[in-house]
Amino acid sequence: MKEHIPVVEHILSANDRIAAQNRTLLDENGVFAINLMASPGAGKTSLILKTFELLHPHVRIGMVDGDLASSIDAQKAQDKGITAVQINTGGNCHLDSVMLQFALAQIEFSEIDLLLVENVGNLVCPANFKLGTHKNILIASIPEGDDKPYKYPGMYRGVDALVINKIDLLPYIHFNMEYFQTGVEILNPGLITFPVSCTTGEGLPAWANWLQENIHV
Amino acid sequence: MKEHIPVVEHILSANDRIAAQNRTLLDENGVFAINLMASPGAGKTSLILKTFELLHPHVRIGMVDGDLASSIDAQKAQDKGITAVQINTGGNCHLDSVMLQFALAQIEFSEIDLLLVENVGNLVCPANFKLGTHKNILIASIPEGDDKPYKYPGMYRGVDALVINKIDLLPYIHFNMEYFQTGVEILNPGLITFPVSCTTGEGLPAWANWLQENIHV
Repeated sequence: MKEHIPVVEHILSANDRIAAQNRTLLDENGVFAINLMASPGAGKTSLILKTFELLHPHVRIGMVDGDLASSIDAQKAQDKGITAVQINTGGNCHLDSVMLQFALAQIEFSEIDLLLVENVGNLVCPANFKLGTHKNILIASIPEGDDKPYKYPGMYRGVDALVINKIDLLPYIHFNMEYFQTGVEILNPGLITFPVSCTTGEGLPAWANWLQENIHV
Repeated sequence: MKEHIPVVEHILSANDRIAAQNRTLLDENGVFAINLMASPGAGKTSLILKTFELLHPHVRIGMVDGDLASSIDAQKAQDKGITAVQINTGGNCHLDSVMLQFALAQIEFSEIDLLLVENVGNLVCPANFKLGTHKNILIASIPEGDDKPYKYPGMYRGVDALVINKIDLLPYIHFNMEYFQTGVEILNPGLITFPVSCTTGEGLPAWANWLQENIHV
């Protein structure tokens, strides 16, 4: 088995090198970028659309959308007036820094302040690939269940903030918030958390404020 | 790039070879096995527990549970009286045939008729790795949204039946069933589909009947 280890290291270090280049490019152009990761259907696109509603036009927002196939989400964003670039990964289960590099080449940096990168819906693989964004954000959602931190520790461990979406469904679903948050705290002590509903709008102003504070740091 | 292609083929053909051995072992022992795939939190474990309630003791059920970490689901199953084997994949985003081979070695085949294999919660990677089971089943769930067939075509294309779980949440969520089913039909024409709720029990008898018919084929 030993001979395989250097190959993996090589891929990851190449990914990290391009990620560092992406970060430099973003910084040079004054664009703050976040990497949004989540299960399929947790609400990545919904959060992007709601964030746009709250921050536009004060903060100018661009989007990069990663999906195995289709351009449904990028289309939704463009319909709202968000500059969107679609990455179709083919069979690939996560974005990597090279894919983001290609997307960045298509963005007019002078037109945006904040870039929201929507990763492929997956709680495993995206956690292993840095993109060069400034923050990694995980969106959990109530219907996924309260045990997800215990089952997907790598994802919960590596993020800078957690959005808990679909809190409007709490009355209809058995979800033990204390059990969930205990799991999060073990993996990522003190993690900043935003319980929100992209349907009702609850909790979104706190998330938008946090983003805005970070942009201006 | 060319030199990488044979490596991938080699891994997949090795996986297929072990999958065929798993199938032979299952057949020789008269055990019907299904591979349950889904997003995180779509209801794989819930469906297993409900299937047990409906078929036990007429059909004797065993479970293999794949997770990155923890043994929460296997524990839930064992608490109900289901013989369960836990596979912790470490960082791996899917089960493969070698992992199932190890699990099968721990199972007393004479004690079960039906083996339910719960794959890692992921709509991408598990689709690419045969395990040797007789049927591949996808569990979709209402809160994931109606666009999932369009975004995860590989998964929808490769399965033998589709369970649509959490239909009890339809009144609270915008989910266009026609749009969803159109997407399914394009990828997998005539796919047998079971709309169910593991919370209310709706639709589960049809699923259990289908399973039972298949076991006796």
